[in-house]
Amino acid sequence: MADKAAVKQKFIDSFDPLVEDLLAVLKQYNISPEATEWFKKSLYYNGVGGKLNRGLSVIDTYQILTGKNELTDEEYKKAAVLGWGIELLQGFFLVSDDIMDASKTRRGQPCWYLVPKVGMIAINDAFMLETAIYFLLKKYFRSEPYYIDLVELFHDVTFQTELGQLLDLITAPEDEVDLSKFSLAKHSFIVIYKTAYYSFYLPVALAMYMAGVSKPEDLKQAHDVLIPLGEYFQIQDDYLDCYGDPAFIGKIGTDILDNKCSWLINTALKKANPEQRKILDENYGQKNGACEAKVKAVYNELDLENEYFKYEEDAVGRIKTLIDNVDESRGFKKDVLSAFLAKIYKRQK
Amino acid sequence: MADKAAVKQKFIDSFDPLVEDLLAVLKQYNISPEATEWFKKSLYYNGVGGKLNRGLSVIDTYQILTGKNELTDEEYKKAAVLGWGIELLQGFFLVSDDIMDASKTRRGQPCWYLVPKVGMIAINDAFMLETAIYFLLKKYFRSEPYYIDLVELFHDVTFQTELGQLLDLITAPEDEVDLSKFSLAKHSFIVIYKTAYYSFYLPVALAMYMAGVSKPEDLKQAHDVLIPLGEYFQIQDDYLDCYGDPAFIGKIGTDILDNKCSWLINTALKKANPEQRKILDENYGQKNGACEAKVKAVYNELDLENEYFKYEEDAVGRIKTLIDNVDESRGFKKDVLSAFLAKIYKRQK
Repeated sequence: MADKAAVKQKFIDSFDPLVEDLLAVLKQYNISPEATEWFKKSLYYNGVGGKLNRGLSVIDTYQILTGKNELTDEEYKKAAVLGWGIELLQGFFLVSDDIMDASKTRRGQPCWYLVPKVGMIAINDAFMLETAIYFLLKKYFRSEPYYIDLVELFHDVTFQTELGQLLDLITAPEDEVDLSKFSLAKHSFIVIYKTAYYSFYLPVALAMYMAGVSKPEDLKQAHDVLIPLGEYFQIQDDYLDCYGDPAFIGKIGTDILDNKCSWLINTALKKANPEQRKILDENYGQKNGACEAKVKAVYNELDLENEYFKYEEDAVGRIKTLIDNVDESRGFKKDVLSAFLAKIYKRQK
Repeated sequence: MADKAAVKQKFIDSFDPLVEDLLAVLKQYNISPEATEWFKKSLYYNGVGGKLNRGLSVIDTYQILTGKNELTDEEYKKAAVLGWGIELLQGFFLVSDDIMDASKTRRGQPCWYLVPKVGMIAINDAFMLETAIYFLLKKYFRSEPYYIDLVELFHDVTFQTELGQLLDLITAPEDEVDLSKFSLAKHSFIVIYKTAYYSFYLPVALAMYMAGVSKPEDLKQAHDVLIPLGEYFQIQDDYLDCYGDPAFIGKIGTDILDNKCSWLINTALKKANPEQRKILDENYGQKNGACEAKVKAVYNELDLENEYFKYEEDAVGRIKTLIDNVDESRGFKKDVLSAFLAKIYKRQK
């Protein structure tokens, strides 16, 4: 565990010079020191503070693909730039999602837009986190033959994430409950587009380009495992929101209160009889603990915990088969995918 | 004028197939028809409806640079894609600026975020307008040697605009008047970064890449005229906000009420004696017609209208000299720049 902490700390430390690179642009433009300080604060507040799993995955994947236990400083730096690119993309999404969802806290502190004096300026700050990605890609990868592939990959994944977010927002607005809009098919689209692409496919595909293991067939192999893996991860998240131990997760789930288009409610809607459906319609998405308890009672009647276990065994079985069938002949490695699965299977937080 | 209207209509018509291109992606991803319809509505609501000067400038500039009165269908289409790229970028900025500024109307209709059911989903819609740019660039320019230059140019100008917006937002928050934060230097930075790059330099630089007249020296020649030209344009805008005829401008100026960091207030601050300064401090940025009138009275005592005329003659003189000195030996044309100046000089709206 100490080792894991050191790995994380090394990655965190690699952010400082990148922030300096970004601030140097502002200084070169001669913008006011106050504005430079503002951007710096936003970069640290919104870039660091999460688990950093996505960013760290780029480095892990690159190591597995190249078979190197130790990276040169230059290799580490470049892989870290790609990793921080994902973390900045995530920062961009989270800052804006929190405004759209009217959230209060994020990573144990107030959401950025709720920090004094920030307010709606957070929208522009979110944009600047996104723009920072392309500045760093240009600075560190411009001379690489795969530079444009990196840029296009970030663009494509950004678009996919925004599509997932759009469907989520119009399917499950917090203030207008209409369960007839929900379906397992929509849930699947939302989780794949909103989460799986940027959290699972993106880190691996970036590392693949950097390692030179990026033939279209290999990117497709990675994609075809990582997308269902990402879907499984999010369904697990939905499960833990209701059935996980708050002591492990670090928060109390609010999906039922918040009218979230979660796997549990969609599975419940599929299985519910007319009476149970009525209870769900009347109580889901109400900001009210008594209503939440009624929904949970229906979940228990429908034995959703067991439904989840069945789903999990089935999904993990399918993913393992997919991994077993991966063709390593061009240099792609099954271990990249097994490492992801191992981190997720039966996690409690 | 009929001709000008036809030119504009042709450009507007060229948007439809681009929207179809974008919607085709959503259909291919199999997102719900409701989400596709939503994106379509946002594209038209926020893409079309303005004067479209920026987009049209790409086509004009390309024609001047190539000396062609008539473009082939393919040339027109490609220039139009670049033009719509700027209009989409502008849509992205305006949708989000309106939220940040709590504006009510835009282009004679409610701001997008105030349209029923939209609300804060407008933030994600703004993102999607931006992402659409890169999708269209990829579709229509991927095989061109200057493809990466176009992508980087959009990234760079986006970053510059966001920096201008940041400085504007922290210098002149609507609810906290502090004129000691204002200065003509900050005003200059804000207007150059927030407006001049994307409105003046971007359309010309895009057309230069497409026309193959894009050596660094020529891009620099364009930049060095278009940035002061854009600054002049915005200062003129600030002037018209107070002294223009609402019948021509189509709106009543609110810069004084809204605590805007305008050229007029900055010039007034520079010239004001202590009594006048006190009046400005007490009355600027107050949502109150009587306060606004007191500020205007100080403006008149300081003869700001005449200050503006002096500024205008000086700026236009400098810009004309810069244009006269442009080196056309590599294919760049002074006419590109004169055409811009002619559209702006002594405009009333």
